[in-house]
Amino acid sequence: MNNFELVLKKYLPLKNNLQSVIYEAMAYSLENGGKRIRPLLVYEFCKACGGDEDKAEAYAVAVEMIHTYSLIHDDLPCMDDDDMRRGKASNHKVYGEANALLAGDGLLTLAFEVLTKADLPSENIVRAVSVLSSCAGADGMIGGQIIDLENETKDNVPIDSLRTMDLLKTGKLIEAACVLGCLAADGSDDMIEAAKVYASSIGLAFQIKDDILDVTSSTEELGKPVGSDKDNNKSTYVSLLGLEESEKLVVDFTNKAKASLKIFGDKGSALSKLADDLAVRRK
Amino acid sequence: MNNFELVLKKYLPLKNNLQSVIYEAMAYSLENGGKRIRPLLVYEFCKACGGDEDKAEAYAVAVEMIHTYSLIHDDLPCMDDDDMRRGKASNHKVYGEANALLAGDGLLTLAFEVLTKADLPSENIVRAVSVLSSCAGADGMIGGQIIDLENETKDNVPIDSLRTMDLLKTGKLIEAACVLGCLAADGSDDMIEAAKVYASSIGLAFQIKDDILDVTSSTEELGKPVGSDKDNNKSTYVSLLGLEESEKLVVDFTNKAKASLKIFGDKGSALSKLADDLAVRRK
Repeated sequence: MNNFELVLKKYLPLKNNLQSVIYEAMAYSLENGGKRIRPLLVYEFCKACGGDEDKAEAYAVAVEMIHTYSLIHDDLPCMDDDDMRRGKASNHKVYGEANALLAGDGLLTLAFEVLTKADLPSENIVRAVSVLSSCAGADGMIGGQIIDLENETKDNVPIDSLRTMDLLKTGKLIEAACVLGCLAADGSDDMIEAAKVYASSIGLAFQIKDDILDVTSSTEELGKPVGSDKDNNKSTYVSLLGLEESEKLVVDFTNKAKASLKIFGDKGSALSKLADDLAVRRK
Repeated sequence: MNNFELVLKKYLPLKNNLQSVIYEAMAYSLENGGKRIRPLLVYEFCKACGGDEDKAEAYAVAVEMIHTYSLIHDDLPCMDDDDMRRGKASNHKVYGEANALLAGDGLLTLAFEVLTKADLPSENIVRAVSVLSSCAGADGMIGGQIIDLENETKDNVPIDSLRTMDLLKTGKLIEAACVLGCLAADGSDDMIEAAKVYASSIGLAFQIKDDILDVTSSTEELGKPVGSDKDNNKSTYVSLLGLEESEKLVVDFTNKAKASLKIFGDKGSALSKLADDLAVRRK
């Protein structure tokens, strides 16, 4: 995970041609910091399975590209209409809506090209393409975004529906990251199953924590406007269950995530610490 | 290529879940007819290389999904802002902008999942993922769309820039279709090179013919508004070279395409006829 920012640049070189603005727009969002949680999960699950971190590089980059494209499209006026992202102007505020739309499409497309560059057997890469596409698609992340949009039109969203939405919208790409990490190390089926439990648990904890931070943080600290859920009259864990119960759920799901790591023995300790860190994060 | 409409449904089943609208929106555009030229090219190049057409099925579906997603995103208000497509309301006019954006993302993502379902060796599938992603991405189709957007802001676009735009925007996905067809039959490198020449030639002929039809056809016949290029003050082959010279170029590129088929012998006759058909099409 060292030098990951340089690794990203390697897989997305700027080019001097008639369409050079597309590479700039893609790089603007891809290289705009962020917590890099998903690539970290790829690397850490690779190591937890006893694999060589270098083998996970292309998979880590691909997952981060999918994550980044989803943020660019999420910020568009027809979606959440957010002007800021990670403390900077969102992609379409800098490059315009059309270029931002295409930059998102470009990153989504490039993610799959990057997978094919992995230094791994073809069978492994085909499986990685299958996992990433199904987790990112209509049965996964995109499905969660659709449910999110549908929920916005409702006054009271059932907690089950909120949970399904989060499991898909946030959880599925985290699952892809964890599973791809296992694949890069040729991990066993049991390891992959454990990775999925970890993923759905920290995915839910992560999303509930997001809802909490939207209420308790400040715009400066968070790097994006706070209070937007309430302003949009959005059902969240906090609005449905209250702050205290939501905090308790974050702890519960974090513990479930940590328990799932048993199969990895000592090699799972970094992932255990990551679950804790995410639960107490301030932004 | 028989029953291709049924084949498409097989790879995109409707689902009854919280996000069911996404499958409907994806199917609305995918199953909205169209000429199915790209899947036809996949099948025909597979046969021209002496392969079994059934092996090409997943590759044909994937390419059509990429083509369809590009149309959905192209029609969005921030892009071409087209209300009609193939004689029907465009996706965002039916499902709204946010759902249309996600339906496009969903088809783009699903295309790569579909590739992994091909009944072909893993090495072949990895190569197909690489070809499709590079042809559809920033160095290919998306790059062409960017150049198209840039050109819209200019009064006089050099003919070279227009040609690069068309080679990328239209030609590259056609190239992917032709090459994927060869791959499905495990065609030789020489066959793949011939397929690329055919692809770039009919790609240019196709786009120039599009420009011609925008001037000479009627809205009813074309199924989309005619005269939009002129209304948008857009540089086209017709506006830069005139109708006669443009018609001549269609013939030249069609002949170049047909000449490239020599390596396939008699097996290339359907592709030769297809090049002719495209050159004289009315819509």
